[in-house]
Amino acid sequence: MTRTEGRTWMEHLTEHECWELASSSPIGRLGVLVDSAPEIYPVNHAVDGTSIVFRTDEGSKLRGLDRSPSVSFEVDGFDEGARGGWSVLIKGRATEITSVEDLLTAEELPLTFWGPGNKSHWIRIVPTEVTGRRIVPSRRPSP
Amino acid sequence: MTRTEGRTWMEHLTEHECWELASSSPIGRLGVLVDSAPEIYPVNHAVDGTSIVFRTDEGSKLRGLDRSPSVSFEVDGFDEGARGGWSVLIKGRATEITSVEDLLTAEELPLTFWGPGNKSHWIRIVPTEVTGRRIVPSRRPSP
Repeated sequence: MTRTEGRTWMEHLTEHECWELASSSPIGRLGVLVDSAPEIYPVNHAVDGTSIVFRTDEGSKLRGLDRSPSVSFEVDGFDEGARGGWSVLIKGRATEITSVEDLLTAEELPLTFWGPGNKSHWIRIVPTEVTGRRIVPSRRPSP
Repeated sequence: MTRTEGRTWMEHLTEHECWELASSSPIGRLGVLVDSAPEIYPVNHAVDGTSIVFRTDEGSKLRGLDRSPSVSFEVDGFDEGARGGWSVLIKGRATEITSVEDLLTAEELPLTFWGPGNKSHWIRIVPTEVTGRRIVPSRRPSP
């Protein structure tokens, strides 16, 4: 069964709206190349100006970032009942934050993390492209 | 501020649990290589046995799938209040469904789509690896 009833339309978001929405969720998804194939990892993140900051442990995610720093970061929010939602895609370059000054600044971010582990590596994604869209369900007109 | 209070642990999910959870959400996220960098697109999907089926229009997503059929598909669910959740990562190979017989079978799947467009291309991801994990928040013991 393919449900196609009802109509929707798609709006492009401004970059300002993209950052507002990316800040509104504590979870985003990192797209990173691991062994030449894309992988997706949910991570807790914070928005710092116009960059994304998250923390990670040693592992395949960090190795992938080291080898292929071109990454994507996606944040979204959907309303299953309304059959609509928004998504933001931030493409950019990931670098580990290593200077003491930058780490102290990053420590001030409202960055939570839910998973276990020390997450001792701090990563910043500096964007090259920020895009977003919203799918808006339209109601059928009343008879 | 880095909130680290409370403790969590991480459970690995069985493959059966992964497919159950992947079926439980109408939205997943496709990770695909576009111009040598990973991109992430939310799509409406259905689980068909042990494969993922979704529909798409012409565009960069479809071009990426044609050129780099090694993809990932991620489905997740989080509870912000409880600071926990689950995620499933399906790595595999994407192929377009083209035979009339396979298309008729795919038409029977409970596959909705919210976005605009005809989404006339049907894609199946046949997995090479299915993994999942759950982050379980633990309550502090009562004093």
